[in-house]
Amino acid sequence: MRICKVVGHVWATKKEDSLVGLKLMVVNEMDASGRFKEDLFVAADVVGAGVGEQVLVVGGSTARIAAGGNELPVDCAIVGIIDTIEVEREKERKAQ
Amino acid sequence: MRICKVVGHVWATKKEDSLVGLKLMVVNEMDASGRFKEDLFVAADVVGAGVGEQVLVVGGSTARIAAGGNELPVDCAIVGIIDTIEVEREKERKAQ
Amino acid sequence: MRICKVVGHVWATKKEDSLVGLKLMVVNEMDASGRFKEDLFVAADVVGAGVGEQVLVVGGSTARIAAGGNELPVDCAIVGIIDTIEVEREKERKAQ
Amino acid sequence: MRICKVVGHVWATKKEDSLVGLKLMVVNEMDASGRFKEDLFVAADVVGAGVGEQVLVVGGSTARIAAGGNELPVDCAIVGIIDTIEVEREKERKAQ
Amino acid sequence: MRICKVVGHVWATKKEDSLVGLKLMVVNEMDASGRFKEDLFVAADVVGAGVGEQVLVVGGSTARIAAGGNELPVDCAIVGIIDTIEVEREKERKAQ
Repeated sequence: MRICKVVGHVWATKKEDSLVGLKLMVVNEMDASGRFKEDLFVAADVVGAGVGEQVLVVGGSTARIAAGGNELPVDCAIVGIIDTIEVEREKERKAQ
Repeated sequence: MRICKVVGHVWATKKEDSLVGLKLMVVNEMDASGRFKEDLFVAADVVGAGVGEQVLVVGGSTARIAAGGNELPVDCAIVGIIDTIEVEREKERKAQ
Repeated sequence: MRICKVVGHVWATKKEDSLVGLKLMVVNEMDASGRFKEDLFVAADVVGAGVGEQVLVVGGSTARIAAGGNELPVDCAIVGIIDTIEVEREKERKAQ
Repeated sequence: MRICKVVGHVWATKKEDSLVGLKLMVVNEMDASGRFKEDLFVAADVVGAGVGEQVLVVGGSTARIAAGGNELPVDCAIVGIIDTIEVEREKERKAQ
Repeated sequence: MRICKVVGHVWATKKEDSLVGLKLMVVNEMDASGRFKEDLFVAADVVGAGVGEQVLVVGGSTARIAAGGNELPVDCAIVGIIDTIEVEREKERKAQ
């Protein structure tokens, strides 16, 4: 899963029938330094996330399962709202 | 899903039989700053998108489902035409 | 699908049995400016593409389907030979 | 599989029901020079990894299988704790 | 498939049971100029590759199939040992 922040909404009137009723949020991935990456994704939300919250996002076929059905045309989904992240990280380190 | 703009068409006479009849559009992904990324994709369109429109694009196995069948040789598909995007975004922010 | 150019061949005598008989081509993806990207891929060709031709390439599980069977150890396949690409593209544009 | 180091934990009270009980760790991929990459991932851990350990991480649909079930909303999982890595590598080399 | 060179081995005593008996090799992808990329992968080897050899590597769900079973927690596998690569490539070229 990727660590993202919910940054907005997207509306699409004309879309695949099976997308109707799904809540679509715009999410922005954060890197190891807590900075936003340049990529934006649109994710189906099934946990009731709101703008400004940090969330766990899954991609690929897993997103269909998370969004509620293998036949959904969804490849990105929010599966959890993050309460706390604890990260220890040395900036540079020799392998093995 | 990725946020793309439809930028063109592609024609291929010689192709897999199951691609015949699918409308193939060239899409260009946009980053968080609204700039075009350097990657171009060719996506199957099932929602009637036109050049210049902002669209939602799915990839991977999800694209086959979106395009109408698990046996289609498609890994990119347009699933919605975007009416509005609302994004709130601070440029840089410490991860907690 | 990605827009690639066929740039060569690859030969592998020692390989998975199910790869025997598949024609493997080296493809090079092109970006939105028509430049070659640094990534090379080896793709199974089922449409009779030749070196120098622009082709449509699929990846992931879709490549297995394109190559002729879900049990093939293939994750990249050529599914069409491009006749024409028409692209309209403004270099930079504010997201709305 | 990717070579990562476990760098932390993440807690999410509000999440998909099927994620309950899964141990989620934050992992940081390492590149060929042993440096941390900027990407962070959250991975389900089924081998009992601890912070500071080097681990093997799988992604995509493989992560669901590794985490214990095809219906889990997981796209990243730790499948092994690395004892030793032996790498021979010339920095630059002409392709033949 | 990606063009990689086998650069080493990895040992993991504590791992998913289904990984036991699989030979895991460290591979390093090469770009179009024959240079090593910064990404390292750990791949299951089923063709008897050795350190220093150029190999074809598959990813994703295809790697499970290549490694011998859809239930294996493997997302990267060596499927062929490269004898020869022939590549014609102009450095820069306008897209038509």
